[in-house]
Amino acid sequence: METEGKVIKCKAAVAWEAGKALSIEEVEVAPPKAHEVRIKIVASGVCHTDWTFLYEVGKTMNPQPFPLVLGHEGAGVVESVGPGVTKMSKGDKVITLVVPQCGKCERCVSPKTNLCTKNWEQTQQCVLADGTSRITCKNQQVHQFIGISTFSEYTVVPEDNVTKIHPDAPLDKVCLLGCGVSTGYGAAVNTANVESGSTCAVFGLGAVGLAAVMGCKAAGATRIIAVDINPDKFEIAKTFGATEFVNPKDHNKPIQEVLRELTNGGVDFAIECVGNVGVMRSAMEACSPAGGVCVMVGWTQTGELTLVSEDILLGKTLKGSYFGGWKSVEAVPKLVQDYMSGKLLLDEFVTHNLPLDQVNHAFDLMITGKSIRTVIHM
Amino acid sequence: METEGKVIKCKAAVAWEAGKALSIEEVEVAPPKAHEVRIKIVASGVCHTDWTFLYEVGKTMNPQPFPLVLGHEGAGVVESVGPGVTKMSKGDKVITLVVPQCGKCERCVSPKTNLCTKNWEQTQQCVLADGTSRITCKNQQVHQFIGISTFSEYTVVPEDNVTKIHPDAPLDKVCLLGCGVSTGYGAAVNTANVESGSTCAVFGLGAVGLAAVMGCKAAGATRIIAVDINPDKFEIAKTFGATEFVNPKDHNKPIQEVLRELTNGGVDFAIECVGNVGVMRSAMEACSPAGGVCVMVGWTQTGELTLVSEDILLGKTLKGSYFGGWKSVEAVPKLVQDYMSGKLLLDEFVTHNLPLDQVNHAFDLMITGKSIRTVIHM
Repeated sequence: METEGKVIKCKAAVAWEAGKALSIEEVEVAPPKAHEVRIKIVASGVCHTDWTFLYEVGKTMNPQPFPLVLGHEGAGVVESVGPGVTKMSKGDKVITLVVPQCGKCERCVSPKTNLCTKNWEQTQQCVLADGTSRITCKNQQVHQFIGISTFSEYTVVPEDNVTKIHPDAPLDKVCLLGCGVSTGYGAAVNTANVESGSTCAVFGLGAVGLAAVMGCKAAGATRIIAVDINPDKFEIAKTFGATEFVNPKDHNKPIQEVLRELTNGGVDFAIECVGNVGVMRSAMEACSPAGGVCVMVGWTQTGELTLVSEDILLGKTLKGSYFGGWKSVEAVPKLVQDYMSGKLLLDEFVTHNLPLDQVNHAFDLMITGKSIRTVIHM
Repeated sequence: METEGKVIKCKAAVAWEAGKALSIEEVEVAPPKAHEVRIKIVASGVCHTDWTFLYEVGKTMNPQPFPLVLGHEGAGVVESVGPGVTKMSKGDKVITLVVPQCGKCERCVSPKTNLCTKNWEQTQQCVLADGTSRITCKNQQVHQFIGISTFSEYTVVPEDNVTKIHPDAPLDKVCLLGCGVSTGYGAAVNTANVESGSTCAVFGLGAVGLAAVMGCKAAGATRIIAVDINPDKFEIAKTFGATEFVNPKDHNKPIQEVLRELTNGGVDFAIECVGNVGVMRSAMEACSPAGGVCVMVGWTQTGELTLVSEDILLGKTLKGSYFGGWKSVEAVPKLVQDYMSGKLLLDEFVTHNLPLDQVNHAFDLMITGKSIRTVIHM
């Protein structure tokens, strides 16, 4: 059946209100407008940020409008493109991107940031460029999580939030490059710019943290200390390159003290992947006073971070990393190639595969620390 | 009269107790021990840190032992050297250094830090390597401020806290390279690594801040916004390269908002030279979210710095700078040459020249904002 130009009826997991489980519904997905792409989603990772938007309303600064289709770590096949789209066409395999890359704005031409401004205001409001969404359910407009919505069999996203990838790439693995793995890996290799022979500490061993461990290894770090309060994460951290494990619960002094003692005064690079301002401070204080670099990756919007000023003044550096510092459209296809050539691990992140109607179970697995990544198969 | 090997009696400004004016006394300066140098001080800048140690006891974490001879921004001539000193000899012109460079410790061989650890613990306690000082007054041991004490006609310092400079250098100008000017200038050119064509903001227009302005100019910044609550500083800031001036008192909104409005969202580089955690936060928030870099230079030991975590997460960088990031022994002679060849301004910092017995007046001039730098002539 030819679907181009028509409304597509399909299944999606709809968030009707905050704090309530997602509901599998039939939704209508309108054709793409100018500079938009309609994608048949094949697979989508389940990211902690999806959960946060549903269950921690009020703890983020962004509005959280309902009804809403969550999901943003997706891969699929282009079903049709709107007017003006030239970079991809029907049948192309693509990954959705939480950060766009228009290639033209002031930030895209700057080497210092990957924070493209294209449609930023709108997608942060969970709508597309024209202020509406392409998804409706029961005659209501359904918001699209950061303009994406991959917990749906079909979705429409801005062309700059999609990138075309190698046609042989397995979509149920490379979908993870749409957010979590790229974020953690890039935090190590781009933002921290981890050096060969260095000592690193990674706080929080979710997918982002494990990807940061993998980045530290790729950059040639000699010691990679993985830190988590869940000892079940330690074995998998080894897979990605961790050389040592520290569980803060095993010590009756602050974790930063433990790490400083382990490392002759502090680590060269500390990467915070939890999103907790207390852990961020610990990470900063675990860094070497001799030029230690602390990178904050774990997302939190509500916290004020308190630091010891002297600690910075003597020469530490604190940096933030968003989507791993990658210029998304051009970087993600290369990361896909790195995976396909064996340079980057992805399969090892996928602990569970579930159909869309078990997406709420995927949330449970994540929140209870039983999964690293669940991939939803449409 | 040959003084080598003998105790020298001379004048020094002694701090007998916290909060009391310095007292000009006759002191006895012992010969240098191994790896020490006795210097006939010719000139010394008066730095805010000297004042802080006398008048803000309890607000710093370092101990502040009395009696004490303050002063650390000095230049003079080597009178004699102790055993093992090979890098300089009698008659050499030298500058004292607040940060040593032994050239051998782990930090000296690292390109990432200038924080040489040689004698650090001792000098922070205001004694030399053997735990004592070389200055006595009225039969009491007098502590040496961070192991230096330039408010004295003679002093003895560790060899790694001194550097030999060009024999034609005017000591009453280049003394400023022992602390303040090197600190601010290096914060811009080394730590911030200010880029050509960039927009900068410098907070606080004392000697350190003005030197940072000069560094921004040397690095090719297009806009250099000088920020101070004392409008009398604005004219001199122009001399060093400031292109715009903002007085926070002229605005009824936070200075970071004013700066963001002036600069299309934020400055590329913000350099804090006040040493106030509130100003540090303003500086951070004045930076561009597109990769802005905030450098903290102004020294404070007691403050906790509170930042908005989201502000960092989206990609800003916060760095600390100590002695401008310079590897002191090798860098300062080059800065002297830069001054002598006209690349670096020093004369313009010196607003007052006073004899040692007017050192308390120099403090008054500084605290009331009437001086940039007073140079004490011995």
